[in-house]
Amino acid sequence: VGKMISLPVKLWLTAIEVGREDPRRPIHALKVGVSLTLVSFLYLLEPLFVTVGQDAMWAVITVVVVLEFTAGATLCKGLNRGFGTLCAASLAFFIEIMSQNSGRVFHASFIGISVFLVGFLATYVRFVPYIKKNYDYGVVIFLLTFNLITVSSFRVHNVLHLTRDRLSTIAIGCGICLFMSLFILPNWSGEDLHNSTVQKLELLARSIEACVNKYFQDEDKEVIAREDKSSKDQIYMGYRAVLDSKSSDEALALFASWEPRHSRHCYSFPWQQYVKLGAVLRRFGCTAVALHGCLESEIKTPLSVRSLFRDPCSRVASEVCKVLDELARSIRSRRHCSPNMLSDHLHEALQDLNSAIKSQPRLFLGSKNARRTANALVDWRSDKNTSSTVALSSAKSDISSLLEGRGKRAPDTPKGLSERKSLRPTLSKIAITSLEFSEALPFAAFASLLVEMVARLELVIEEVEELSRAANFKFSQEDEAVI
Amino acid sequence: VGKMISLPVKLWLTAIEVGREDPRRPIHALKVGVSLTLVSFLYLLEPLFVTVGQDAMWAVITVVVVLEFTAGATLCKGLNRGFGTLCAASLAFFIEIMSQNSGRVFHASFIGISVFLVGFLATYVRFVPYIKKNYDYGVVIFLLTFNLITVSSFRVHNVLHLTRDRLSTIAIGCGICLFMSLFILPNWSGEDLHNSTVQKLELLARSIEACVNKYFQDEDKEVIAREDKSSKDQIYMGYRAVLDSKSSDEALALFASWEPRHSRHCYSFPWQQYVKLGAVLRRFGCTAVALHGCLESEIKTPLSVRSLFRDPCSRVASEVCKVLDELARSIRSRRHCSPNMLSDHLHEALQDLNSAIKSQPRLFLGSKNARRTANALVDWRSDKNTSSTVALSSAKSDISSLLEGRGKRAPDTPKGLSERKSLRPTLSKIAITSLEFSEALPFAAFASLLVEMVARLELVIEEVEELSRAANFKFSQEDEAVI
Repeated sequence: VGKMISLPVKLWLTAIEVGREDPRRPIHALKVGVSLTLVSFLYLLEPLFVTVGQDAMWAVITVVVVLEFTAGATLCKGLNRGFGTLCAASLAFFIEIMSQNSGRVFHASFIGISVFLVGFLATYVRFVPYIKKNYDYGVVIFLLTFNLITVSSFRVHNVLHLTRDRLSTIAIGCGICLFMSLFILPNWSGEDLHNSTVQKLELLARSIEACVNKYFQDEDKEVIAREDKSSKDQIYMGYRAVLDSKSSDEALALFASWEPRHSRHCYSFPWQQYVKLGAVLRRFGCTAVALHGCLESEIKTPLSVRSLFRDPCSRVASEVCKVLDELARSIRSRRHCSPNMLSDHLHEALQDLNSAIKSQPRLFLGSKNARRTANALVDWRSDKNTSSTVALSSAKSDISSLLEGRGKRAPDTPKGLSERKSLRPTLSKIAITSLEFSEALPFAAFASLLVEMVARLELVIEEVEELSRAANFKFSQEDEAVI
Repeated sequence: VGKMISLPVKLWLTAIEVGREDPRRPIHALKVGVSLTLVSFLYLLEPLFVTVGQDAMWAVITVVVVLEFTAGATLCKGLNRGFGTLCAASLAFFIEIMSQNSGRVFHASFIGISVFLVGFLATYVRFVPYIKKNYDYGVVIFLLTFNLITVSSFRVHNVLHLTRDRLSTIAIGCGICLFMSLFILPNWSGEDLHNSTVQKLELLARSIEACVNKYFQDEDKEVIAREDKSSKDQIYMGYRAVLDSKSSDEALALFASWEPRHSRHCYSFPWQQYVKLGAVLRRFGCTAVALHGCLESEIKTPLSVRSLFRDPCSRVASEVCKVLDELARSIRSRRHCSPNMLSDHLHEALQDLNSAIKSQPRLFLGSKNARRTANALVDWRSDKNTSSTVALSSAKSDISSLLEGRGKRAPDTPKGLSERKSLRPTLSKIAITSLEFSEALPFAAFASLLVEMVARLELVIEEVEELSRAANFKFSQEDEAVI
């Protein structure tokens, strides 16, 4: 009994969930219901039925098949259906005229052969990528209508009449669909594409933020372990949404290109530019995946070393996120972004990271020596693990003070000599800070991926600029001043 | 005139091209042509027409809409259509019985309300992800048929008769489609999925191979510039095909799950495992993208340094490619792979790379000092650019011989002292080999990505093992012995 009760509850919860995810869905369902009811009046109301008769069926079919979620998709299908039907009707008439004065058997075989040929050709044409992408549905409808008319023409003699009735009911069906999707609370594919692009930029920013934060987190802490799952999900969700966006982006761009909304300015809106931006973002997303890989790799740079570079790395990451957010904001509000201002901070942060890396003395000794030193140091380090950060940074400050001292003390002594002098006393300390290269490697990769990310970000910025040029986004001085 | 001639030529070339890409395409087109001709016999042949009458139209519609390229897709659509029609007919009858003894106006409004409600609910149900994925077409057909039958029932009084005729013609249409796609030169979605998985593994192998070869190539050579374009294409094509495979993989797996072919062994074939493998391959592909990013990044490690690590890196890459090829081969021939043997070589190569990296002495000095040294060295290096490899390796051998000497000479002197002693004379030489960290960074990232790639490859191997277990691939001792 419990199961009997829980099933409707489950269904109800699913229904609520589906509606909450996108409130336009129940509205679309309502629109379909209303359209179907309207179209069924062709049967139910006497005066209408007298005019269209049994052909009202075609209006019903058209509404069920053509009315899609977004205006672009409905237009695409509706126009494809319209043109497909028209072409098919014309061809069917041509064949009807060709064969009308012939004998019964000849007529039948002529119809059979033409059905075969048209079926073969239409199906073959559907494999051509360009046709498949833009007019697949139209070709199917062409084939369908051609066959129905041609074959009926063998039995029904007033084919012209039959075709006219059918076309008019299809037109009624298409009309209702277009009215419903264009004028009653329309959903635009273009809007969806626009918003999904904005959302992708933001998701990437959150993903990178979470990734870098996690990299510099102390793994040992208990509290973080609980947050870990959610941050991992955030990272994963972010880049996965971007990586998996190809087919939905392309479909939305295709439907958006059928939408009339932006053509009132007499230029066709550059939807393909969104697709291009999507492709660049996917490649950018790959860097995020690789960065996430650094978190998951088995060999890890010790936290003590990582934390030395926390500030400059976090700064680069946060600048990257800022740029992504700014790009998202500028696309959302359809205005030009100011790339120079954006990348200035970015390059500053990059410079900081670069000099931070350069300022860390690190000695990679020969393998045997390094092994021995490392082995000797293992116990020392494992004892003082918690204080190693302090040790490292004090070693660093020692060195820099020494180097500075050397710079002041002996500005004109021969280079080799002064170097040897000043470095000698610090060598043992450098040896303490020395890492095996394989341990430093993951951090180097992390840093390099951050740098790579900045380079890729330039491409994203370029593509967004291209988009804002192509889409005539507005320049607004005030907005820029505020930000 | 030239244009008039060139258009048919162009069309002809496109047609040839489409057919050459996949020779099954013209065969499928022929099958559609034959099926349509067969179905049109229902109209054209007198005895058949007498039986089915005007309802033959439904057979034509069914053939045009249901007959898809692969058997799985046809089955999926055919069964969806069949069940959708049956459910719709049952519900329509129920409603017909409910309202049959009522007045005309009540009947009409009852039909109107039920059309609206069913339209709303069916459309809403289509938004549920599970339904959308598996039964979208079935729900559309349900809605279509329900409306047609319910609405017709207002005018036609023998609805049972009408429905029976319609169902039988749809069954004829579905029967022809299923016969054509299952028994006449069938194309299996499962096969396609299997082959595309094999191909993806091979493409990734070629992509990584090309990537690593290019990384260690001398950019200055003229000959290579010409090859460059093609190798870049190869790299790009390889990982792009993998990254973009999500939607086609999922569609193929869905259709494959409808195919009866592998159920004769009384277990359902694990097509979802192919989808999972595809997901793991996409993440692996991201590493390839990141590796490709190393080729394209603006800051590059000097070739002289890169070439020091050419052999170990190439070896790791070639082992990765070997593993990918072996996995592809084992999936293609549907036999278990021997992962231990595979990963042994891989880990050996990885060890070599690791020790090669460790054996390179590299000193990252403090920033100011490094700058000065670097500046001083720039002229020296730019003069001796060609011989720097030699200089580096000689410096290396110097150091290692010295270190070895130290190891023998003073095995029991205090560590700090012996280090200081032995390192002092080599310092100037190390300074010569010192690189700015930012220059070494890209190589470190490259090496680290290679290591990362090996780690990801383990996941791919695991997933392939999982697949071969789930799909009951055969063990074949002979095959393994040969390889």
